[in-house]
Amino acid sequence: MPKPAIILVQPQMGENIGAAARAMCNFGLEDLKLVNPRDGWPSESATANSAGALDIMPPVEVFEKTADALKNYHTVYATTARPRDMRKKVMSANHAAQDIADKQSQGLKTAILFGGERAGLTNDDIALAHNIISIPVNPDFSSINLGQSVLLVAYELFQTTNDTTPENLPVGDSAPVSHKELNEMIERLETELEDRKFFRNPDMRPSLIRNIRNSLTRANLTEQETRTFQGIISALIGNKIK
Amino acid sequence: MPKPAIILVQPQMGENIGAAARAMCNFGLEDLKLVNPRDGWPSESATANSAGALDIMPPVEVFEKTADALKNYHTVYATTARPRDMRKKVMSANHAAQDIADKQSQGLKTAILFGGERAGLTNDDIALAHNIISIPVNPDFSSINLGQSVLLVAYELFQTTNDTTPENLPVGDSAPVSHKELNEMIERLETELEDRKFFRNPDMRPSLIRNIRNSLTRANLTEQETRTFQGIISALIGNKIK
Repeated sequence: MPKPAIILVQPQMGENIGAAARAMCNFGLEDLKLVNPRDGWPSESATANSAGALDIMPPVEVFEKTADALKNYHTVYATTARPRDMRKKVMSANHAAQDIADKQSQGLKTAILFGGERAGLTNDDIALAHNIISIPVNPDFSSINLGQSVLLVAYELFQTTNDTTPENLPVGDSAPVSHKELNEMIERLETELEDRKFFRNPDMRPSLIRNIRNSLTRANLTEQETRTFQGIISALIGNKIK
Repeated sequence: MPKPAIILVQPQMGENIGAAARAMCNFGLEDLKLVNPRDGWPSESATANSAGALDIMPPVEVFEKTADALKNYHTVYATTARPRDMRKKVMSANHAAQDIADKQSQGLKTAILFGGERAGLTNDDIALAHNIISIPVNPDFSSINLGQSVLLVAYELFQTTNDTTPENLPVGDSAPVSHKELNEMIERLETELEDRKFFRNPDMRPSLIRNIRNSLTRANLTEQETRTFQGIISALIGNKIK
């Protein structure tokens, strides 16, 4: 599925353009356009701060006017930090990411506008957009920079199009212990404890065993950890460790 | 509701500590602890890069050992970039934020560990944690820095505890037009069009009017915009604009 374009309008510092490019690569975006960058293009500081991203992305296109950069797009999103006196749909980054994914899956091309460091997008730029993206932030400390804004929007887009539920994230290599092996360990523990008169009150024995079983089950032991516990039992009862 | 602590373990560059502090303030966190920062503490470069955040946060606490920094916490999360051969619950930042909010609301204190720039957390540090947070990222370009990792986790925490659905975000100041005013405008347009023989085929008139009504309704006009359109109609039919 094609990905949205990121368009930086009148960005000032090359460092921030580099950070934006890096954030885009981190989250699988590659279409970066610049409108009227203050210090020209290409930029050494952008390349240095992109951590290699600008080397692997397609060439960055540079335009004089925002409208020219938007020529081929169907739906445009403008990011703004402060509310503007314009009637447009305002979306959080999270909801915008979902909306963008929907549009892209319908074959519509989308672009996201980010303004320069000093004052953000002009009202004329925002008038070119269909929707506004407002990143929710602490109102008492709301300054986030250009690179961070691109990072958060790119992150939300990546989350929308990649299944990142915990089940799909890697877990450690060790295999979980089978019920049989865990049970053998617990039964052996019970036997050894009985031999050592651990269960002074026979009435309490079932609930004590149940508590031990509960806690060891909750620990989700691996095979290796279970073998380690078997070794611990052997050591504690005075068996030589083989 | 209390907020989770952010603990940076053996951070190297002051700039990244400052960026982490800034990101914390952006998203309403304030409990920052450092374990064994390479260049000592306080740090001029951290202060400079925090954009004022370190001036308004409570003093940063510094510890020799990770376990000491964790003394007062019930549930600990370790952030890791690469999978480790350990059996722990692995959560995306999004799911971890929800889990942390649940824990905090139960009165449990939570802390999130971030490793240093070069190699992340040691396996010994991770063994102190109950859960692993893995930020989902493009596997082909996965280098995100310390400040960015803190930013993304803090952002997710903020989203979990603040309702950021679009309806709760600010919309432009102009009031939406009432149905009555919109209808007056459309009916006037219809009358003027009729006077000018716009409707050549009377059978088509209802569907043409319906199309116009649909498009103008979909535009969600404001009162001001509706007045502007009334002015446009006046201008087009040759009336002097008052």
